[in-house]
Amino acid sequence: MRAVALGGGHGLHATLTALRRLTDELTAVVTVADDGGSSGRLRRELGLLPPGDLRQALAALAADGDDGSLWADVFQHRFGGSGALAGHAVGNLLLAGLFEVLGDPVRALDEACGLVGARGRVLPMSPEPLDIEAEVTGLENGELSRIRGQVAVASTPGQVLRITLRNPGHPGAGPRACEEAVQAVLDADVVVLGPGSWFTSVLPHLLVPELHDALIRTSATRVVILNLVPQPGETAGFSPERHLDVLFEHAPRLRVDAVIADRDSVPTPAGLRRAAAELGGRAYLADIADPDVAGRHDPDALAGCVREALGSESGEEGTWR
Amino acid sequence: MRAVALGGGHGLHATLTALRRLTDELTAVVTVADDGGSSGRLRRELGLLPPGDLRQALAALAADGDDGSLWADVFQHRFGGSGALAGHAVGNLLLAGLFEVLGDPVRALDEACGLVGARGRVLPMSPEPLDIEAEVTGLENGELSRIRGQVAVASTPGQVLRITLRNPGHPGAGPRACEEAVQAVLDADVVVLGPGSWFTSVLPHLLVPELHDALIRTSATRVVILNLVPQPGETAGFSPERHLDVLFEHAPRLRVDAVIADRDSVPTPAGLRRAAAELGGRAYLADIADPDVAGRHDPDALAGCVREALGSESGEEGTWR
Repeated sequence: MRAVALGGGHGLHATLTALRRLTDELTAVVTVADDGGSSGRLRRELGLLPPGDLRQALAALAADGDDGSLWADVFQHRFGGSGALAGHAVGNLLLAGLFEVLGDPVRALDEACGLVGARGRVLPMSPEPLDIEAEVTGLENGELSRIRGQVAVASTPGQVLRITLRNPGHPGAGPRACEEAVQAVLDADVVVLGPGSWFTSVLPHLLVPELHDALIRTSATRVVILNLVPQPGETAGFSPERHLDVLFEHAPRLRVDAVIADRDSVPTPAGLRRAAAELGGRAYLADIADPDVAGRHDPDALAGCVREALGSESGEEGTWR
Repeated sequence: MRAVALGGGHGLHATLTALRRLTDELTAVVTVADDGGSSGRLRRELGLLPPGDLRQALAALAADGDDGSLWADVFQHRFGGSGALAGHAVGNLLLAGLFEVLGDPVRALDEACGLVGARGRVLPMSPEPLDIEAEVTGLENGELSRIRGQVAVASTPGQVLRITLRNPGHPGAGPRACEEAVQAVLDADVVVLGPGSWFTSVLPHLLVPELHDALIRTSATRVVILNLVPQPGETAGFSPERHLDVLFEHAPRLRVDAVIADRDSVPTPAGLRRAAAELGGRAYLADIADPDVAGRHDPDALAGCVREALGSESGEEGTWR
C-alpha cells in the first residue's frame, strides 16, 4: 500500500508512527513554512528550507534498533546552554549541511533517510521556503488584520479566518510544489491529512497549487485525521466540524473519503458525520487518544482506525500492508 | 601492517593520506588541544573535545566513492555568511552531537568512521580537552614569558622554547591518555610522528604521560616525518635538525628509527643525518613535496618513502600492506 501523509510537526510524527505499522511504502510530505525556533534561525541565517519538520518526519520513519536509532537520537538531540548553538537540533544542522552540499533538498532528504534507516521517504511540500500569511479578526476593533509567519499565526490572540502562502524567494511566482511530492500523491493508494496545527501544518499543503490539484486528481483514498484538542491560538474553540469547514473553505473541490476522530474529542457525533458527508466521506470515531500522554494519539489505535477506514472504503478489510 | 599516525591538522591529513596507500590497519591519534576557529568556539560553548582535527583525520580516512565520499564532503563543508553558524564545519557540529549523545568520544568517533566509511580508526590522544602552555622568549626584553592556548602559541611573534600540557577540566590530574590510543601504539608495527605544526600538533602527544610511555615501550618502528617548510610563528627559522632537537628535549628517552624529510627542504643533509643518528635512527631524504601545491606532501611519494624506510628497517622491502 502506497501511503502519503501530509502535515508537519508532532501531528505528522503521530500519523507516520501509526502508518508505518501498516506499510513500508510511506512518503511524508512536509510543510516548509516554519519560521520559529532552530528552524527559523537556520532559515534566516542560511536561506535554506526550514529543517525542523523534515527532521521530525525522518525521526518518525527511522529504523528501530541499531544504527538507525542512534542516528535518529543524534538527529533529535538539541544543544543546550545559552551560546550560539543553544536550541539547535543536530539533525537540523546536518540537513542544512546536506542542502548546501547537494544543492537539492530531495536528494539531501533521501541521503538523510538512508542514514537513519528510514522506512519510507521524506519530501518537502515545496523546494523553496514559504511564508504563511493569515487574515485574522479580533485584533483591532473588529477589523481584518493580516499577519505573516508561522509563529505569528500559530500564536495569534485573534481568530484566524484563512491563510495564503507566499514565496519570499520569488514573490511573483507563488508557491512551487516539490515534483516528487506531487507524483507521490498521484501514485498513492491512500493520502492522509492531519492531525496537526490546522492553519500552519495541515492547510498549507492545499495552498500549493500543483499539490492541491494532485490531491483532487489522485485515485487514492483521502483520509483526514482530526486533532484531539483544539490548538491554543490558531484554532482555540474550534469544534471538529469547524476544522472540516475550514478545510473546505481552503479547498472547495477537495473530496474526502474518511474523517477519523477520537470519540471523546467529538461533542456531537451527528454533527461531525454530517460535516464529513458534506465533504463526500464517512466519519470514523474511535478511542485513538493515548491514555498516558494528554494530546497525543495512540499509534496502534490510530493505525487500527485507519485500517478500518481503508477496509470499509475498499470493501475488503485487513488486506493492507 | 598496523600503523599509528600521531598529529593534527593538515600534517596528519597528509600522513594518513599517504599511509592508507600502505595499509588498512591505520589508527590516527589526534591532538585535542586546539582552541581556535570552529573547534575553539565549540569547545568553549559546549565543553567538548575540539572536533576539528578529529574531523580532518576522518576525512583523510574516508571511503573514496559513493556514500563515504558524500559524507566526507558534508563533514568538511563549512557554513558561510556572518551569522551564528558562520565558519562551523558541519562535521564539527555532528561530532559535537555524537559526543553529547553517546557521552564517549571513542564510541562517537567509531560511529563517525562508520558513516564516512573510514579505512581505519580515529582516536583522540586524550578523552578530555587539553591546553597547551608555552615558554617563549623574545616577547619582553629577553625574559621568559608563558603563553597559553594553541592559537596563541602557533602565532606568537616570540620563539617557543618548550611546551607543557594542562588539563583545564582536572587541573591537578595532568593530561590523561585515551586508553585505546595507548593500546594502538603498543600494538603497532609502525608509529609515525609529524609532519605538522611542531609545537601544537606533533609534540603534544609526547606530553601525555601514558602515550609517551607507550611510544617508548612499543616494539613498532618509529618514524618522524619532517615539515617541508618551517611554520611561520611557532617554528620560524627552525632547521630540520632543530625540529629533532626539540623533539629530543621534550622526550629524551624516545628513540627514532627513521627520519623522513624532503630533499629540497634540507640545506645540510649531513647535519640531519647526524641529528637522526643521535636519536638512534637513519635519515631518509627523498622528493616528497607536491610539485603542484606549495607546502604539501605528495601522498604517493611520501608513501613510497615510508615503505622504503620500513623495508630498510625490517630488512625486507616491499612486503608491507
